[in-house]
Amino acid sequence: MKASYVGDYEQWVEGFQFHIEVRVRFSETDMFGHMNNTVSFTYFEQARIDYFRHLGVLMPAAIDENVKGIPIVADLQCDYVQQVFFDDVLRIYTKVAKIGNSSMDLHYLAKNQRDEVCFTGRGTIVQMDPQTGKSVPISEEDKLRLKSLAVN
Amino acid sequence: MKASYVGDYEQWVEGFQFHIEVRVRFSETDMFGHMNNTVSFTYFEQARIDYFRHLGVLMPAAIDENVKGIPIVADLQCDYVQQVFFDDVLRIYTKVAKIGNSSMDLHYLAKNQRDEVCFTGRGTIVQMDPQTGKSVPISEEDKLRLKSLAVN
Amino acid sequence: MKASYVGDYEQWVEGFQFHIEVRVRFSETDMFGHMNNTVSFTYFEQARIDYFRHLGVLMPAAIDENVKGIPIVADLQCDYVQQVFFDDVLRIYTKVAKIGNSSMDLHYLAKNQRDEVCFTGRGTIVQMDPQTGKSVPISEEDKLRLKSLAVN
Amino acid sequence: MKASYVGDYEQWVEGFQFHIEVRVRFSETDMFGHMNNTVSFTYFEQARIDYFRHLGVLMPAAIDENVKGIPIVADLQCDYVQQVFFDDVLRIYTKVAKIGNSSMDLHYLAKNQRDEVCFTGRGTIVQMDPQTGKSVPISEEDKLRLKSLAVN
Repeated sequence: MKASYVGDYEQWVEGFQFHIEVRVRFSETDMFGHMNNTVSFTYFEQARIDYFRHLGVLMPAAIDENVKGIPIVADLQCDYVQQVFFDDVLRIYTKVAKIGNSSMDLHYLAKNQRDEVCFTGRGTIVQMDPQTGKSVPISEEDKLRLKSLAVN
Repeated sequence: MKASYVGDYEQWVEGFQFHIEVRVRFSETDMFGHMNNTVSFTYFEQARIDYFRHLGVLMPAAIDENVKGIPIVADLQCDYVQQVFFDDVLRIYTKVAKIGNSSMDLHYLAKNQRDEVCFTGRGTIVQMDPQTGKSVPISEEDKLRLKSLAVN
Repeated sequence: MKASYVGDYEQWVEGFQFHIEVRVRFSETDMFGHMNNTVSFTYFEQARIDYFRHLGVLMPAAIDENVKGIPIVADLQCDYVQQVFFDDVLRIYTKVAKIGNSSMDLHYLAKNQRDEVCFTGRGTIVQMDPQTGKSVPISEEDKLRLKSLAVN
Repeated sequence: MKASYVGDYEQWVEGFQFHIEVRVRFSETDMFGHMNNTVSFTYFEQARIDYFRHLGVLMPAAIDENVKGIPIVADLQCDYVQQVFFDDVLRIYTKVAKIGNSSMDLHYLAKNQRDEVCFTGRGTIVQMDPQTGKSVPISEEDKLRLKSLAVN
């Protein structure tokens, strides 16, 4: 539980108010018998997109045609606390930890059906114009929605 | 070796004149200790695209901007003959088995480093206009290139 | 809807009494903008395993330690009827179409949120002893459970 | 190029003496048209395993039956510098940055066919006994081999 972005653990956990549920697929295991470590990032992606949909912000153009930018992953990080197995049911929590001008920091927490922490993570999302490759400021409207829920 | 599309096995194998090589990744295994059965279709896709590049036909728009249609998979099939393991080096053979007006039939054969048949497969590719969803006839030029190599 | 294993479509569809629901992940799309065609096989795998769990048959050893054999995929097939997109919610139906001594035939049907058929499929599962590589007869108990639900 | 683990960039790059080559698969792209960000971790895994094989250390039991522990990923991190596209040919460099008692720090660097940095990364590997879940000290022999090549 010592990842540097976590800080005070109790306080960090309390900040999460949104989660999705995933069941570990057979094809997501590897020959060591557990969930392959690349899979957690797929879960983070799903949680992030569902979170944005829930908030109504930063939706991909496929969903909202008015969007000028697309959310691009600038960096990603995962800390594995405990092995995850086939058929485990995970809750993937996510929250906005910091909002910048055209980027934001998201944190992630995965707990299994026994409420044990399996892995944690974080990553920066930048809103980018896919034509120019330049960053696009997050709208004030989106910022308000994000801030209303962002609890550090 | 009894998949219906194979017919006479010796003759079928002789028809292959192109292959790619793949090494089974750790993340492509599952908890049964072998290559997960969904992975063979990823290898087929890679072999098909490299084969088209080799022939200079049906390239995705990312490669050739003059293309009006994109190659769409209409059906896919895989017959598993022998287990495949982490680090096995597979040769994925592919050939055109039949050419239609706007579609073609591709066959696949996977052999490991001991020259053992691991799996075989087939699938139909249709050239489609992504805007209209309608099939696009394969150009005479592409057909000639395909026929020069297609051996049943 | 013309895949050979479907036969009479209305009758075929009526035979399905079990399904799972999946939402197409962002990472499961490809640069053509739709669900990559290799993904359907992952959904079939998930449907098959959940179906076996529902019936209480052929469970992987991770779930039921009394199992002597493991269910191995002998062949797989998918016919793509209609494009599938990010965020589509699919119902993946599965049923036992035929039961042999140590193998069985499963059929699959995928419908989207507008109740449109997106793809169909089938595949043979063989119960195999992972130590010897030989097929293991399906127990009479398992056969009874399977037959009580298998409707062709 | 500002990831904290990089430090002095020129010096950091010089430390890499091993790389693998991967070509971005079609199925590894997503609907944004580039390599999905979860894929870099698959490449890191492949580079790490090939690096260990090259050094003859920490091999999975499938390769070397004398191994008492298996290499477990404790954490993973990726910083995306530039978009990666279908068919790009990447060199994935890896090196040991630090060796502990039963763990080590690996760094990664991905460059494309134009020698542009696409992403960098790092992660901790712990040697673990899969039976007990406890860490297993890295053998002196393995340490020597690792140190002979580890250049910070």
